Amino acid sequence: MPFVYHRTVHFADTDAAGVVFFANYLAICHEAYEEALAAAGIDLKTFFADTGVVVPIARSEADYLRPLTCGAKLRVTVVPEAIGEDSFALRCEIIRLGRPEKCAARVRTEHVCTSSQKRTRTPLPPALAAWVSAG
Amino acid sequence: MPFVYHRTVHFADTDAAGVVFFANYLAICHEAYEEALAAAGIDLKTFFADTGVVVPIARSEADYLRPLTCGAKLRVTVVPEAIGEDSFALRCEIIRLGRPEKCAARVRTEHVCTSSQKRTRTPLPPALAAWVSAG
Amino acid sequence: MPFVYHRTVHFADTDAAGVVFFANYLAICHEAYEEALAAAGIDLKTFFADTGVVVPIARSEADYLRPLTCGAKLRVTVVPEAIGEDSFALRCEIIRLGRPEKCAARVRTEHVCTSSQKRTRTPLPPALAAWVSAG
Amino acid sequence: MPFVYHRTVHFADTDAAGVVFFANYLAICHEAYEEALAAAGIDLKTFFADTGVVVPIARSEADYLRPLTCGAKLRVTVVPEAIGEDSFALRCEIIRLGRPEKCAARVRTEHVCTSSQKRTRTPLPPALAAWVSAG
Repeated sequence: MPFVYHRTVHFADTDAAGVVFFANYLAICHEAYEEALAAAGIDLKTFFADTGVVVPIARSEADYLRPLTCGAKLRVTVVPEAIGEDSFALRCEIIRLGRPEKCAARVRTEHVCTSSQKRTRTPLPPALAAWVSAG
Repeated sequence: MPFVYHRTVHFADTDAAGVVFFANYLAICHEAYEEALAAAGIDLKTFFADTGVVVPIARSEADYLRPLTCGAKLRVTVVPEAIGEDSFALRCEIIRLGRPEKCAARVRTEHVCTSSQKRTRTPLPPALAAWVSAG
Repeated sequence: MPFVYHRTVHFADTDAAGVVFFANYLAICHEAYEEALAAAGIDLKTFFADTGVVVPIARSEADYLRPLTCGAKLRVTVVPEAIGEDSFALRCEIIRLGRPEKCAARVRTEHVCTSSQKRTRTPLPPALAAWVSAG
Repeated sequence: MPFVYHRTVHFADTDAAGVVFFANYLAICHEAYEEALAAAGIDLKTFFADTGVVVPIARSEADYLRPLTCGAKLRVTVVPEAIGEDSFALRCEIIRLGRPEKCAARVRTEHVCTSSQKRTRTPLPPALAAWVSAG
């Protein structure tokens, strides 16, 4: 079962074309990722600070399938996939609720665990590795 | 009773000082305003588009009382106050949940209903006026 | 010769990890695209409004190669490539200036010209088509 | 003579009403502040990180006088004013260029130098104090 995050489109997400700015689809998926980590017991304040080990996004791919307007109700699903002991991918879908529901975007990101001083790859912290392998 | 909006601090809200960027406190209050309007039956897609009548913010004042880190749980309260037939103010408080709760910011905005072609003030639409006077 | 856009990393671009938030790399490339269009004589206010024909981004791919901190000086290059009469791609590189220069990201976006009422593909407007074919 | 920063309105600054989102006026003024600090020889990466001493914004006031559309050319002026040995204010004006020029916003922010561990006020660092007193 994928993790599910519910979100309403805010006015600040939109641009002068009247719909969500393309880069903000990625930010919405990142929110879903944060909620998934929090639900797995990971402390977000520490996780996303630079505490010597960081897990930056190395790659993103997104297919934008439908425009989203202010007030739209979204369901975002997040599925992690292991790549190696130091990296994983996330597959997210943004579904616009309504009748019928419509897939508004598919986003895939790759995350690489890194020692921020040495700039070398390092294994995922245990709690994160457990979340990925349960995904 | 003020309208209440619950919000978690997202990573994208923060800046390199590790806490929410000051301008994003205002964006968070605007989300609460949107939710209050939606709860009052106002269609956000139409309301926030330029349909000939717009209700831009003419003034904001904010006191930033406490830093907010990623993952913090917030309760935002919104209280509208009539100024005249064509304008109103919002008073918002951002409360950081926890033991004890702490007020993280107080924000006041002024909104002026405007004809977007003529650039002149015009009375609030009835549904908005009703929401303000009920506030 | 690619179009070149110079940009400094702002504090608002960064997140609590101390570096530019991943989705903001895409926003920075979009700024470069806007500047390239303006340099080609295209009016941005009209182009990016919904005037019946819109050119939304249908896909993005980004490789994030290096973190970027507040104050970093960037050179962003933009190269358009025709896909068909109704679509094109942009290839952008974000270079962090300094000694030595480093490539911080490579971003590719696909743009599809669309009739916003009919939701069907439509040929690129002449000025945009000219810019793409000159690219 | 105030510090002057030139800026073009980007698509990402705008919202579905077709103009710059109100909170982004504050972000634009912050960019001007960053440029003023950099011009005074202050290293932004260090200044805006949490290195034990931070200078958060404690209050903002903004009057939004005119809407700004994508592609608009802006001149932002920044004038610092001392408040005490541990705090200062900035007065910013956002001028929309054109014939005639128009003032689009006036923004005032208060900045308080703070020990981030002790959460107590502390004197401005010398380089910042020098910039404020020269303002």
